[in-house]
Amino acid sequence: MGAGAWGTALAKVLADAGNGVRLWARNPERAAEINRTHCNPGYLDVPLPASIRATGDCAEALDGACTVLLAVPSQTLRANLTEWAPYLGHDTTLVSVAKGIELDTLMRMSQVVVQVTGADAARVAVVTGPNLASEVAAEQPAATVVACSDSGRAVALQRALSTGYFRPYTNADVIGAEIGGACKNVIALASGMAAGAGLGENTAAAIITRGLAEIMRLGIALGAKPATLAGLAGIGDLVATCMSPRSRNRSFGERLGQGGTMEAAMAATGGHVAEGVTSCRSVLALSASYDVEMPLTEAVHGVCHKGLSVEDAVALLLGRSTKPE
Amino acid sequence: MGAGAWGTALAKVLADAGNGVRLWARNPERAAEINRTHCNPGYLDVPLPASIRATGDCAEALDGACTVLLAVPSQTLRANLTEWAPYLGHDTTLVSVAKGIELDTLMRMSQVVVQVTGADAARVAVVTGPNLASEVAAEQPAATVVACSDSGRAVALQRALSTGYFRPYTNADVIGAEIGGACKNVIALASGMAAGAGLGENTAAAIITRGLAEIMRLGIALGAKPATLAGLAGIGDLVATCMSPRSRNRSFGERLGQGGTMEAAMAATGGHVAEGVTSCRSVLALSASYDVEMPLTEAVHGVCHKGLSVEDAVALLLGRSTKPE
Repeated sequence: MGAGAWGTALAKVLADAGNGVRLWARNPERAAEINRTHCNPGYLDVPLPASIRATGDCAEALDGACTVLLAVPSQTLRANLTEWAPYLGHDTTLVSVAKGIELDTLMRMSQVVVQVTGADAARVAVVTGPNLASEVAAEQPAATVVACSDSGRAVALQRALSTGYFRPYTNADVIGAEIGGACKNVIALASGMAAGAGLGENTAAAIITRGLAEIMRLGIALGAKPATLAGLAGIGDLVATCMSPRSRNRSFGERLGQGGTMEAAMAATGGHVAEGVTSCRSVLALSASYDVEMPLTEAVHGVCHKGLSVEDAVALLLGRSTKPE
Repeated sequence: MGAGAWGTALAKVLADAGNGVRLWARNPERAAEINRTHCNPGYLDVPLPASIRATGDCAEALDGACTVLLAVPSQTLRANLTEWAPYLGHDTTLVSVAKGIELDTLMRMSQVVVQVTGADAARVAVVTGPNLASEVAAEQPAATVVACSDSGRAVALQRALSTGYFRPYTNADVIGAEIGGACKNVIALASGMAAGAGLGENTAAAIITRGLAEIMRLGIALGAKPATLAGLAGIGDLVATCMSPRSRNRSFGERLGQGGTMEAAMAATGGHVAEGVTSCRSVLALSASYDVEMPLTEAVHGVCHKGLSVEDAVALLLGRSTKPE
C-alpha cells in the first residue's frame, strides 16, 4: 500500500520471492502506467516484475490479501489506514514499513496500526533496516529485520521476503525494531553538522556510538531489547544513514555545520527541511516523558529550533562531566 | 613506551591534561630530536608540548612512573615488556594501548602483560576506541574507553587522559574492550572487498552490523559484556575502521574486491599486507577454540589464504539459511 520508492522496491522483492503482489498507488494514472510499462519512473529506475499488478483502488488491492505492507509516510499512516480498515481481513498480517513517531500522539507506527484497526498486536509486524530503496531495487545484497511478537507470522514474512539479494532476519522485539528507525535521522543531522564543521573520523564514530547509546537508553525505557538496537534495525540503519553521502539528513546537517542558516540548508536540499529536523521534536518529547537523557538529540534540537550554534553545541557535548560508558 | 604515532599522540594528551610525561623511543636519536624540536616528524605533524621529555633509555623512562602506557605493536609487546619488567614499580598501572591477539598464544594484550610481568590483572588497564592518532593530535573531538577491573585505577586514568578534545569513558570490562580492536581489521577488509566489488551502502551497513554480531558472539564466549561491544571499543572502532578512506585494511580489501590479487593489493598499499590479513588467522583460531561461528571472518580468511574469490565469498554469505537476528 504505497507506490513510492520503498513500497515499489518491496513489491519487487515480494514478486521476486514468488508471491502474488498487488501494488496500490494513490494516483490511478501511476497505477495504470506501472501496469502498462512495468516501470515506476521518478521513484525507481529499474524494470519491475510483470507479475506485479498495480491499482488505484484500495478495496481491490486489499481484497483477500493475507499480508498487507503499509508503505505510506509515517505522518499520514493514520489517515490512510482509517480509510483502509474496512477492507482488511480478520487474520491479515499488517506490516509497518514506515519509520517515525507520530507527532501529536508520540506513538510508534505499530501502535497507530493497533489503535486504528483494533487488531491484536501479534498481527502487526515491522520491516526495517539499512535498506536504501534504490540499492534494493538494483538487487545489491542487503539485510533487514522482520519483527513480530508472533514468531509464526515473523517466519512466514521472512520467507515471503527472502531472495538472493534480500536477506531478512526475524526478531520478536517490535519496539526495538521501530525505535532505531525513528531516531536515526536526528543523529544523522548531528553527523552532518560535525562533518560540515570539518571534524573527522574519530568524531563521526563517537557521534554514531554515543547516538546509539542514547537511542538504546530510550529503547530500553520503552521496553526494547538492547540486542535489537545493536543489530540491523539500530546500529545498521544508523550507520547507513549517518555515512551515506545520499542521506538528506546528513547533507542538511553539513550545511548547518558549514555555518549555513536553516533557510540556506533548506534551499540547498530541495526546499524541504530534513526529516530529522521534525523528528527531533517528537523524539525529545518522548525521551522527556520517560525521563531519558539524550544529549545529542537535545543538541540537534537546540541547533534546529533554538538558535544554538554548531560550535556551541559541540562545546556543550564535550563539556559534560566524564562518566562510565 | 613507544614513540610511534599513537604513543606520541597519547603523550600529547597526557601532557595537555597536566601530567608529567616521559616518552620512550626505541631510537635514541629520535628521542634527542623530540627533545630538541618538540616534533616527531614522520609520525605526527603537530608541535608537541615542551613538557614531554623523550628518552631512549627504558630505565630512565620507567623510573618511578605511576602509570605506564605500552604503545608498541601487539606482536612485539611480549619481547619489549620482558626487557622492561625489572624497572616497573609494584603498584604501577600498566596500560595496553595496542590492538591485537598474539599469534602463537592467541592471548589478548592484557593477558600478555599479566603473564610477562606477574602483575595482578586489576593493575592492567586498556585504552581503546575510534582514535585515529593524527586526528587526536590535531585536537579534533574524540571519545575513548579506559577499561580496568579496578574502578579506582580506571577513574584515575580517565582523569589523566581528559582534555577539552579527548573524552574517556570508564568501563570495567577489559575483555570486551580488547576484543573489538582485535577483530575490527578483518571486518574492515570485508567492507573494502564489498566496496571494491561495487556494492553500496546497504551492503556496507549489513557487513558492519553482522560483523559486530560475530564479534559479540566471540566476545561473549570469552566473557565480555555485550554493552562494551555496542560501545566505543566495539561498534565505534569498527565504524571508524570500516568507513575511513584512510584505513589501510579497507583500501587493501577494495583492491581485492576490484579483482586484484594479494600481490597487487600489497603493491598498491605500500608493499605490506594489511593487518587484518594476519589477524583473520588468529581471530579464526580463537573462535574455533571457543566453537563460535564467524562467517564474515571465515570468508575473509578464505579470500586471503585459500584462494576464494570475492564473488564466491559474497554468494556463500548470502546463501546461508535465513535465521533470527
